[in-house]
Amino acid sequence: MLRTHTCGELRLENVDQEVTLAGWVQRVRNKGGLIWVDLRDRYGLTQLIFEEDSSEKELLDKAAELGREFVVQATGTVIERTSKNDKIPTGSIEIKVAKLEVLNAAKVPPFIIEDETDGGDELRMKYRYLDLRRNVVREKLQLRHKMMQETRKYMDAQNFIEVETPVLIKSTPEGARDFVVPSRVNPGEFYALPQSPQTFKQLLMVSGFDRYFQIVKCFRDEDLRADRQPEFTQIDCEMAFVEQEDILSTFEGLTKHLFANVKGVELEEVKRMTFADAMKYYGNDKPDLRFDMKFVELNDLAKGKGFGIFDDAELVVGICAKGAAEYTRKQLDALTDWVKRPQIGAKGMVYAKYNADGTIKSTVDKFYSAEDLQAWAEAFGAEQGDLMLILSGEANKVRKQLSELRLKMGEDLGLRDKNVFKPLWVVDFPLLEWDEETNRFHAMHHPFTSPKKEDIPLLDTDPGAVRANAYDLVINGVEIGGGSIRIHDRATQQLMFKHLGFSDEEAQKQFGFLMEAFEYGAPPHGGIAFGFDRLCAIFGGSDSIRDYIAFPKNNSGRDVMIDSPSTIADEQLKELSILVNLKN
Amino acid sequence: MLRTHTCGELRLENVDQEVTLAGWVQRVRNKGGLIWVDLRDRYGLTQLIFEEDSSEKELLDKAAELGREFVVQATGTVIERTSKNDKIPTGSIEIKVAKLEVLNAAKVPPFIIEDETDGGDELRMKYRYLDLRRNVVREKLQLRHKMMQETRKYMDAQNFIEVETPVLIKSTPEGARDFVVPSRVNPGEFYALPQSPQTFKQLLMVSGFDRYFQIVKCFRDEDLRADRQPEFTQIDCEMAFVEQEDILSTFEGLTKHLFANVKGVELEEVKRMTFADAMKYYGNDKPDLRFDMKFVELNDLAKGKGFGIFDDAELVVGICAKGAAEYTRKQLDALTDWVKRPQIGAKGMVYAKYNADGTIKSTVDKFYSAEDLQAWAEAFGAEQGDLMLILSGEANKVRKQLSELRLKMGEDLGLRDKNVFKPLWVVDFPLLEWDEETNRFHAMHHPFTSPKKEDIPLLDTDPGAVRANAYDLVINGVEIGGGSIRIHDRATQQLMFKHLGFSDEEAQKQFGFLMEAFEYGAPPHGGIAFGFDRLCAIFGGSDSIRDYIAFPKNNSGRDVMIDSPSTIADEQLKELSILVNLKN
Repeated sequence: MLRTHTCGELRLENVDQEVTLAGWVQRVRNKGGLIWVDLRDRYGLTQLIFEEDSSEKELLDKAAELGREFVVQATGTVIERTSKNDKIPTGSIEIKVAKLEVLNAAKVPPFIIEDETDGGDELRMKYRYLDLRRNVVREKLQLRHKMMQETRKYMDAQNFIEVETPVLIKSTPEGARDFVVPSRVNPGEFYALPQSPQTFKQLLMVSGFDRYFQIVKCFRDEDLRADRQPEFTQIDCEMAFVEQEDILSTFEGLTKHLFANVKGVELEEVKRMTFADAMKYYGNDKPDLRFDMKFVELNDLAKGKGFGIFDDAELVVGICAKGAAEYTRKQLDALTDWVKRPQIGAKGMVYAKYNADGTIKSTVDKFYSAEDLQAWAEAFGAEQGDLMLILSGEANKVRKQLSELRLKMGEDLGLRDKNVFKPLWVVDFPLLEWDEETNRFHAMHHPFTSPKKEDIPLLDTDPGAVRANAYDLVINGVEIGGGSIRIHDRATQQLMFKHLGFSDEEAQKQFGFLMEAFEYGAPPHGGIAFGFDRLCAIFGGSDSIRDYIAFPKNNSGRDVMIDSPSTIADEQLKELSILVNLKN
Repeated sequence: MLRTHTCGELRLENVDQEVTLAGWVQRVRNKGGLIWVDLRDRYGLTQLIFEEDSSEKELLDKAAELGREFVVQATGTVIERTSKNDKIPTGSIEIKVAKLEVLNAAKVPPFIIEDETDGGDELRMKYRYLDLRRNVVREKLQLRHKMMQETRKYMDAQNFIEVETPVLIKSTPEGARDFVVPSRVNPGEFYALPQSPQTFKQLLMVSGFDRYFQIVKCFRDEDLRADRQPEFTQIDCEMAFVEQEDILSTFEGLTKHLFANVKGVELEEVKRMTFADAMKYYGNDKPDLRFDMKFVELNDLAKGKGFGIFDDAELVVGICAKGAAEYTRKQLDALTDWVKRPQIGAKGMVYAKYNADGTIKSTVDKFYSAEDLQAWAEAFGAEQGDLMLILSGEANKVRKQLSELRLKMGEDLGLRDKNVFKPLWVVDFPLLEWDEETNRFHAMHHPFTSPKKEDIPLLDTDPGAVRANAYDLVINGVEIGGGSIRIHDRATQQLMFKHLGFSDEEAQKQFGFLMEAFEYGAPPHGGIAFGFDRLCAIFGGSDSIRDYIAFPKNNSGRDVMIDSPSTIADEQLKELSILVNLKN
């Protein structure tokens, strides 16, 4: 080793020891005859001292020439500091250096390597290896490491077997777009990278593996939004001989284990809510439960009083913002403008203030009597000082709009604390979802999700009403993962493919192996997958997953550090039996 | 849960309990009024019993109809068996079944699902999910799981951080062939799948991560030999501020930890051998040290006695097979034929038997006196009863041939015990290796390996003689992993690329980011990677890695179960801006 100790471990009890440290120069303070150097490594910071009277001239000159981010090895004696720094664990000591070696010089970095940096996003991504030197960034990846180790510890203790499923698999058009890999040995044929190990984990259940898990890279060739990555990581699981309740309790256990062991937070029991209730009361299948502000439907109270906008609306629905009656006219106008932005799309907003004096003042006083408004307040459970905000229109649309408004109000009122964690199971998702573009039903989860037995007859009469044995884990309004009890017999799987518009031939070509496997003794089974990047971000209190990925790609799927993707040699294309065709 | 217990846990102390089990029908024995069913799951086997006198007729009929591999759920009472089976842990009890439910029927499987099966390789691969039901196969993957968990436990305890490096990276022509992935968003450009995370882990060292590891999938588009897979798994590691010795001792520690905790074997200290010695004494850079049989060079003793074949040879070299003097003429002829096969390529073999009576009988008695042969025996350290086998020819070739012969003799004499483990560090590998095909030097390890400082001047005069700071871990003649101390400064890296025939432009285009990173304060660093599939195979006592991979590909890189690779839709090709071109 080029060091006897790290830069984070020396204390007063080490005084008088001769030590060798190695690390990066964080800072140099040169007072002429006295030079201090802060030496940094992953473990901490230690102060080196060079003094004119005791150090040789040559050594002092060497120290004076050190620049930021130089890599050095320093040997010397641990001494007690005269002026201690109680902000760092090594702040009581410093190293009186006798020998200094520059292991590598450094050019001036393109941005400051401190917790607060002057580097913009693009620059930091190009020099990601320098960005990763910053404590705040490295700590995020250390958190990720800890999350991985704790996940495995829990799963292993629960008798799950980690099995690596293949990365070079088969392309299937259902779902998102696949990344494909041309096969040189099989010209004209392609592998695909997995969007998830779904079929493999189900086959492992058919194999009797009973409990499978994997922390695994998955791939989706989607047009990237701010917080999506073409490659991402899942905690992927499957269990046999289980019912939905067993999966929920096992992964509630994982969630609690992680919170307890990584964050030291004892999580309360995870609430349950049906998809239908989530939509009705929060307008959203991933409600943020850190605050209440439930939707209240006002059709009965607000219609038929001559206010045309409400009379014509399918749904009149609102929320009650506790203590917000003091919002000024200006603030309320701004709020109205906010909901009318095209991203939200409301036509307008009605509000009613429950004033401190007991009166209720609304924007629609012309149509509603004081008693009418009092009845609204009762419906909302509003008290003096509260603000009622009401939207109206087509039910599905207005719920989405109000959901956005609810989240904004929660944000504005400081109700979305990053250190509070409110997990929720959303259950009973619909099996199918109508797709306007293709004009057919798609699987809301995926084609292997089982419908609720009692809803199967609806498949022919009202497919959109069929509920699935499917569930999502939501924390603080973020979808952390989802899963389902799977179909495990050929007949139901075929029925499902039929309803998804697969011909028998298509179903057989793409998933014949799975349906055949179901005929050789497939046990009832189900599973779940957690988005690991997002889970880490939630634990770290961040909105962006990118910070929790060591080498992320930008929104064009490009790694700007290594400059990839890139063109490849003609020889490679030829060997792969493909041509580039830029003309379409 | 569809069960209260697994099929592996019930014992005498559970007698009289009402239990529910679920699993697969392993066997049905029907004695008319009495039916026994062996129920199997991952955890074991439990006997179910159905009796005419106590069971209802309907239940008995149901049991009679069960076939192999049916999935059933059975509820009943644990009773003590009259005739116990001490071969299985549950052999003292059976379940008197009161309720039986068939959860899924099963077609007759295409091969027998027992430890010994009648299924051929291809059939078992096509129905891999059934093959995986066999205990002997599942146990291999459970071993793999345990190896993974223990590896992580050790690395975590040693302060290594597990960092996931990207799978979609950049193609570089150096080394083996890349798998590539067309980028839809960047038409005409391609990602490559990593052959190893080499450059990323080095960048993590530049980032100050200090100790990195990952258990990671890697990819190589090679023409597959029997024991290669296009995707394989590595334990990948890197450390900063270290010298070779630190890496050897850390990973010797990992190896010992795994042997102790997975196999219960306390490993002795790992021996060291230079590459030069390995070649000189074993003709092989991965010698099997479970047996000695070192090469003995005989040029001094065997030349100049009128035996033309030896006189003309660059090298006369042999091995001494202890106790093999009793080999018959027929056996020795067969051995001579064996070394003359084209796969080995020797022109012939000389042998000398040290008989029990003290005489030495050789095939070249015409040229060598009894004293000459006695001198040979002394050189070999041969004793009465030993057999000396001698080959001659061009030094490099004859060493390879003798290495094969040595391994065969070790095998034939029963010296290669699968339960004995002899690990070895081979060190001081050459930096460069001459490639006949391209007529230039290639990096023996990879272009990032550092030359030994004292050998750098040889780069210009005798490149093949330059030794690298590179090492391999070998166990029982199998290369488990290798690594090196890396170059960490731009000048040396450029020098290396120059000697590998890169133009400055090529070097910059492919590895500019790495060389630039070296200018911003790169610490001295080095690392290693273990082939995880192979390590598992060694632990399992198997020669083939394929058994230790859940869903392996065949020798054409095809997954015969899911039938991949496959053609993809024209629409996909169009979106990716590529065409299939089968005409070249």
